[in-house]
Amino acid sequence: MAEVYAARRERLRERYTAVGSGAAVISRPANVRYLTGAAPRGAVLFLGPEQPGEDVLLCARQPTGRQDEGRPDEALRVTLLPAPDADAAVAAAGLAVRLGAETIAVEEHDLTVARHRALGSAAEGLRLTDLGRAVEQLRLVKDEEEISCLRIAAEIVDQALGELLESILVGRTERHLALELERRLVDHGADGAAFPTSVGTGPNAGVSGHRPTDRRVEEGDFLTVCLGAGYRGYLCEIGRTFVIGTAPEEWQIELYDLVFAAQRAGREALVPGVACRDVDRAVRQVLTSAGYAEGLPALMGHGVGLEIDEDPQFAPAAMGKLDACVPVTVEPGVHLPGRGGVRIDDTLVVRPEADGGPELLTITTKELLAL
Amino acid sequence: MAEVYAARRERLRERYTAVGSGAAVISRPANVRYLTGAAPRGAVLFLGPEQPGEDVLLCARQPTGRQDEGRPDEALRVTLLPAPDADAAVAAAGLAVRLGAETIAVEEHDLTVARHRALGSAAEGLRLTDLGRAVEQLRLVKDEEEISCLRIAAEIVDQALGELLESILVGRTERHLALELERRLVDHGADGAAFPTSVGTGPNAGVSGHRPTDRRVEEGDFLTVCLGAGYRGYLCEIGRTFVIGTAPEEWQIELYDLVFAAQRAGREALVPGVACRDVDRAVRQVLTSAGYAEGLPALMGHGVGLEIDEDPQFAPAAMGKLDACVPVTVEPGVHLPGRGGVRIDDTLVVRPEADGGPELLTITTKELLAL
Repeated sequence: MAEVYAARRERLRERYTAVGSGAAVISRPANVRYLTGAAPRGAVLFLGPEQPGEDVLLCARQPTGRQDEGRPDEALRVTLLPAPDADAAVAAAGLAVRLGAETIAVEEHDLTVARHRALGSAAEGLRLTDLGRAVEQLRLVKDEEEISCLRIAAEIVDQALGELLESILVGRTERHLALELERRLVDHGADGAAFPTSVGTGPNAGVSGHRPTDRRVEEGDFLTVCLGAGYRGYLCEIGRTFVIGTAPEEWQIELYDLVFAAQRAGREALVPGVACRDVDRAVRQVLTSAGYAEGLPALMGHGVGLEIDEDPQFAPAAMGKLDACVPVTVEPGVHLPGRGGVRIDDTLVVRPEADGGPELLTITTKELLAL
Repeated sequence: MAEVYAARRERLRERYTAVGSGAAVISRPANVRYLTGAAPRGAVLFLGPEQPGEDVLLCARQPTGRQDEGRPDEALRVTLLPAPDADAAVAAAGLAVRLGAETIAVEEHDLTVARHRALGSAAEGLRLTDLGRAVEQLRLVKDEEEISCLRIAAEIVDQALGELLESILVGRTERHLALELERRLVDHGADGAAFPTSVGTGPNAGVSGHRPTDRRVEEGDFLTVCLGAGYRGYLCEIGRTFVIGTAPEEWQIELYDLVFAAQRAGREALVPGVACRDVDRAVRQVLTSAGYAEGLPALMGHGVGLEIDEDPQFAPAAMGKLDACVPVTVEPGVHLPGRGGVRIDDTLVVRPEADGGPELLTITTKELLAL
């Protein structure tokens, strides 16, 4: 793996040296992990002007190598900060000075103004430039190693959800179902939940990002579950909606079929080269043409990887096109105030037609189950 | 409660108007909640030049009023952003422009450089100044309403911990014990865990911030548990160390007594007017004089409130003095690599002698229990 991280650092080095920076300071945790294999809390990566370079991972404490934190690339130098509460970004600026760099590229979308100023004073006389989202751009297209971590994360959420469906649901609260799901994620080897598990019943079903309440599952409810898991730092999500007990009512079947059709349209739109906004439109159109223009989610899906909500975004104003090997979610939902609603959410990897089209990672059935 | 929030906003308004700012933009979630009663995700508080003022809470979506998110002060205007992914801080800048403010005070320790720039361009021609940690300073001393929330949070952690102690521990993994504790916190009405619950057994016991592993509790282990709960946004923590099964060994008793003595010294040092570094010294001295200078935690305790780790800090270089009605933790620990260790952590409120001295919120026993 060490070569993988070294190669990523080289690709990044080409970018900032090309624009005249002699060094870069990477502070955003997911970016640090992408370039080093680990992101101990508060760690910052310093990158010098050239290979092999004076690259250093600056940490407050010795990395633990825990699965959720990762293990730093053994080819990379790791330096502990003088004090546990010292700012690694400021220490990195000191390295740039000693190196005689004239310009440091920093992540202005991550550093606070106060931290940026502290870094600037430590780098007295050096110019600070904005690295922008250069590392995020490198992270967009995943290699097979990354995708296999996502595949395992997907197996974990499928297992946790599958086990829940075999248990009795009526009478249990949203909170307890959510906690049980999170326990199962850990049981199956997840680093942890990728985000707070959302369980919505009855009127709460289909609300995006609904935080579980003490409402109990009742006969005839819609039940929406959205959960995510991390495996070796890679985060994957799934969302499903079920009906409880009795046979679904007419309106429930209609609403479900509609959201299912919208979600399928999104999945089918996932071909290399498609504009992200066209994926959004493919999904949104199905819902709007059925009269659900109001209160639709801002995004119909998004990229996943070391963060649960990364580029690309499927939104009406989204820029850019989809590439192969980009993992994304497709997650439309409709909520009828007071009645409940439906969300269906999958994680897939964009693949060329020749390879069979989009690879579905979350394989739990999407037929409307009555539990 | 509305008056409480209005009064807090007035105290803050005096600060920034005194230094010539006509408006302020509060972006740090805990600060937004302190001043409004709620902190919906991404919400920003705009404060105008004067009472009643054009104060507005800018949100991406209608606040839910959930216990963990809070309910906005009904006297305060709430405005929804045009788009769910719009930046509320940028929208706030627009309000300042329409108001004809010349200067806006912003939280440079919270805003990223990129966000600060976006806010600046939206506030074309206005001067941006740094509000600094003015709201954090207001938050230091808690009112009785806040302290009663902390008291309930403390009852919750005491209950969750007490129930765990009644169950069989040998053979269970750190992960499962941690998950069970978090479930119990929720059962007892917590908003949720204040931080990832830490359970350490055997060689992992006493490691500060230890993330639970699959190691199982064994006879003769030290078992260290640190957990925190939030109630209406107010966060409280407790840490205890136990021995499992058989009677403790000599070295375990000695180490426990030492950490207990250090922690008691810290609790006894909590009097209004004491220098924060003196509280740190009171605790640290006991440990260092016993030969444990190496690898001690950077902090011997810290303030708690709307954040689990707020000012003041008990550290050797800490500035400032303690006031009455400041809730803090006292949490020394010693870890012997390969053997394990002890941590004892309480949340207390600083009170004058006349009122009986420091108020202990977390009342679970600190005698060395053999479970």
